[in-house]
Amino acid sequence: MVTLFPRRKRRSSLSRGRSRHPNPDQVVNRVGLSELTPDLPHFLGQAAYLQLSFFEGLSRAVTTAPSTASKEAVSRVAAIALGRHHELVAELEREGESPSEAMEPFVGPIDAFQLRTRGSDWFEALLGYYVASGILDDAFAGIAEGLSDDYAERIARLLSNEVAHDIVVAELRAAIDDNPRLASRLALYGRRLVGDVLLVARSALDLPKDTAPDDERLEPVLTELIAAHTRRMDDLGLTA
Amino acid sequence: MVTLFPRRKRRSSLSRGRSRHPNPDQVVNRVGLSELTPDLPHFLGQAAYLQLSFFEGLSRAVTTAPSTASKEAVSRVAAIALGRHHELVAELEREGESPSEAMEPFVGPIDAFQLRTRGSDWFEALLGYYVASGILDDAFAGIAEGLSDDYAERIARLLSNEVAHDIVVAELRAAIDDNPRLASRLALYGRRLVGDVLLVARSALDLPKDTAPDDERLEPVLTELIAAHTRRMDDLGLTA
Repeated sequence: MVTLFPRRKRRSSLSRGRSRHPNPDQVVNRVGLSELTPDLPHFLGQAAYLQLSFFEGLSRAVTTAPSTASKEAVSRVAAIALGRHHELVAELEREGESPSEAMEPFVGPIDAFQLRTRGSDWFEALLGYYVASGILDDAFAGIAEGLSDDYAERIARLLSNEVAHDIVVAELRAAIDDNPRLASRLALYGRRLVGDVLLVARSALDLPKDTAPDDERLEPVLTELIAAHTRRMDDLGLTA
Repeated sequence: MVTLFPRRKRRSSLSRGRSRHPNPDQVVNRVGLSELTPDLPHFLGQAAYLQLSFFEGLSRAVTTAPSTASKEAVSRVAAIALGRHHELVAELEREGESPSEAMEPFVGPIDAFQLRTRGSDWFEALLGYYVASGILDDAFAGIAEGLSDDYAERIARLLSNEVAHDIVVAELRAAIDDNPRLASRLALYGRRLVGDVLLVARSALDLPKDTAPDDERLEPVLTELIAAHTRRMDDLGLTA
């Protein structure tokens, strides 16, 4: 299950091969995230629990930070994730939904995701948040475009806070400068995470149940998510 | 060192004995917290790190909450502690102090306090926060009265948010209602904590270095803190 990304890469030559002999059905099937937007409680429940899960990972990183200054810096990022969670919960409440009921279906899968991707130390934990929230905040903002205009805008604004990104980049760059050997370990760890993260992104989509899941169909969207991820890894001086 | 409270109790009959034969020196020595207010960076650094430490304990309680609804509820309390921490850090920055340098002297003692008082499960962890923040928020608000009026008011407002109290009471009362045997365990655990908590309150005071620490001198203040603590335990239906 965690091989989505490697498979995707291996398939991409096949995909290029196919596009030279285009299959009209397949072209029609190529969709953006906003065409696979699930119903609102599903979307908000999953997005809310995901931010809570980010918060939990970040709060562990607050506790294990290597210095008081880093602890303080990461606590800002934790506050941002927790703030997003509470705003999404407020959206659920506005819709008359029970937040805990809306989040419940996602608790098992997202807890398992968090456990697989929590990293073996502070640096990996922080990179894990950086990679996962980078890709998934993009993905959820994309999916939100399939909601009403009002929602699309609110969710995009909610998820677009650059402060968290900047703090994490500053912390990780400083750590890598202090210990250049960290770079290759973190680059490898980042690469390991991407498959798991993309599976979460995919689980957020309302893929038609009677169609075999088809990575091909999501290819352009995944390519965009990966391109943005690659730019974020560049910001750290790491290869994606 | 953790016997401050039991000793205080044992001494209280002695204290009552003495008050029947009052010693004028001793009466003069009886002081309120605001007469023992340390310098501003000390006060803000300790208060800020304490709230960060509360946040760390609460964020563990978010992770270990027995249900998604409780997780969500405790995350509100964690956000409040983290918000207080960030407001106190902002005060340090306004004073031109480095927040991490101002907090540094308190990291060791407060981390040790957190470790001793984190509880063996979610219920004890939540009660631990309730007892510690109950007493210490009162104590720090009292100590802040020795700062400028402006500070005294800001700090009191900062620490007086009742939402955290109400959420914790609702969670713990529900847990105790579900499992009445929890009541005696939590009452015992609460009693065990008070000594450690009062030592933190005391470490926040600027006690003259050439005087042997004298619990007697602080007795009226401790009595007030304990009375408020007892009322908070009543709110849970527990004996203090």
